[in-house]
Amino acid sequence: LDHDALIEAALQGERGAVARLISMVENGGSELPVVMEALYAHTGAGYSIGITGAPGAGKSTLTERLVAEARGRGHQVGVLAIDPTSPFSGGALLGDRVRMQSHATDAGVFIRSMATRGHLGGLSLATPEAARVLEAAGKDIVIIETVGVGQAEVEIADACDTTIVVLNPGWGDAVQAAKAGLMEIADIFVVNKADRQGTRDAVRELRQMLEMAELPWKPEIVPTIATDGSGIDELWTAIGAHREYQEGNGLLAKRRRRRIEREIRDIVAERMRQRVESHAGGLLEQLSEEVAARRLDPYRAADRLIEALEAG
Amino acid sequence: LDHDALIEAALQGERGAVARLISMVENGGSELPVVMEALYAHTGAGYSIGITGAPGAGKSTLTERLVAEARGRGHQVGVLAIDPTSPFSGGALLGDRVRMQSHATDAGVFIRSMATRGHLGGLSLATPEAARVLEAAGKDIVIIETVGVGQAEVEIADACDTTIVVLNPGWGDAVQAAKAGLMEIADIFVVNKADRQGTRDAVRELRQMLEMAELPWKPEIVPTIATDGSGIDELWTAIGAHREYQEGNGLLAKRRRRRIEREIRDIVAERMRQRVESHAGGLLEQLSEEVAARRLDPYRAADRLIEALEAG
Repeated sequence: LDHDALIEAALQGERGAVARLISMVENGGSELPVVMEALYAHTGAGYSIGITGAPGAGKSTLTERLVAEARGRGHQVGVLAIDPTSPFSGGALLGDRVRMQSHATDAGVFIRSMATRGHLGGLSLATPEAARVLEAAGKDIVIIETVGVGQAEVEIADACDTTIVVLNPGWGDAVQAAKAGLMEIADIFVVNKADRQGTRDAVRELRQMLEMAELPWKPEIVPTIATDGSGIDELWTAIGAHREYQEGNGLLAKRRRRRIEREIRDIVAERMRQRVESHAGGLLEQLSEEVAARRLDPYRAADRLIEALEAG
Repeated sequence: LDHDALIEAALQGERGAVARLISMVENGGSELPVVMEALYAHTGAGYSIGITGAPGAGKSTLTERLVAEARGRGHQVGVLAIDPTSPFSGGALLGDRVRMQSHATDAGVFIRSMATRGHLGGLSLATPEAARVLEAAGKDIVIIETVGVGQAEVEIADACDTTIVVLNPGWGDAVQAAKAGLMEIADIFVVNKADRQGTRDAVRELRQMLEMAELPWKPEIVPTIATDGSGIDELWTAIGAHREYQEGNGLLAKRRRRRIEREIRDIVAERMRQRVESHAGGLLEQLSEEVAARRLDPYRAADRLIEALEAG
């Protein structure tokens, strides 16, 4: 299959083609820019929802419920499950993925676990590209689920139109969430496992923290029990409310433009890294020798490389 | 305190100065390149040991024991504890840090938990710089402990002279470790909590996997019980053996040069990112508008930016 045929098939929503394109994104081959360019004109109509939270918070079950909710309302849904912890926890989290197989036979749903071995920009560049593949394939709702274990993962979750942070009662206080900078990225807080003790306290503390934070958008706090579906309807409504708010005041366009700016900057940085490799490999080696010998420090060496790249 | 005085004090091993310089690295201010350049000439004599593994594997206790072992042998020791999971687990892992306070009154030990909010290159650039601060301050052994939860963290652990991967019996098979690419980064495997059932099986499986892998250096497998100190002596010997092996055949110099190459490439990429910000902010904004309008795709926009930067 050549690229044009592959892209055409993906635009028709063919699963095999979509899967192959996402693999292409993961591997980050040299053909990727051309393919992404061809797809790009077919994107922009989808809405992306980020779901993040600590391991075990119930994100997968919640995602599964949201998929069902969206399907019931006639949406085509794509899911990207990003597991940055895979080198160490691979097996365990894979189990969650398997649970999502309840949607496996539904042609309106495409679920994919993402990893990145080859993509130079890492997950922060690969994720929006994979989301675009899903969008181009007709998925008008794209859910990006990440295990929130680090700043980078939080950033991936933040690269969505609506970001949901999933907490549990007794997870460690709303104070913890505030410290972790989650107040800044959450558009909606979900307190999942709301049948457990401490739910009311968690919601109240969270509300107090949010009131003190004086944010322009006051994130809704939605208690859910993902395992039995309680609260999913309310969560869907909250997502809709946040979407309307952003569409109404121009914030959505602004948010997306900011995201695009970040992406372009990331691509520039990666391009330069590649260029160093391909056009200045010899110089890099030579400079590294000098740095190793302590005749030069890494910052000066970098400056010299940039000068050389610009000169020629 | 001006920079020269601060650097001078750090070179004398003054704790306050060392702490301030590492904070400077974390914050990534504009003065950082100048300060790092001044320090750079005073580095290179230390040996760095990376310790990585899943949360709960016992890395902190192991690190604490290694610190004591190294101190007993007359080394000055620096420890960087990198916790990329902090936005979500902050409190819990901080508890581990507190345990290390047994060395708090020892002037020959400097322990620091690292985070990065400001450093543009993230932890992968900030970590080697912080390690250099410790080296310049006279720490001839620098231990870099990271919670191994993702590829990035594994890379940080790999940025050391000897990398130790900590597993537990029944952690999930040696097979898991192989899949996760740990065979490639581990110079030594520690099977910690070796008083638990399954230790012998874990060691045997690991050994079989290693034999199949046909690596140039066969990582030693050291069972330890960090809580009571069993196996620490053997671990120290294994580290020494790996060090000698690498020093004897020139691999250490090669490994360090490769690391320097990576660092220079990373700095180039970050510099370009900053340059986009400072010299082409207006163009970036304009290009982002066009990308948002789907008249241009992100890759093309990045190309145009690079052209503009090079032209001007």
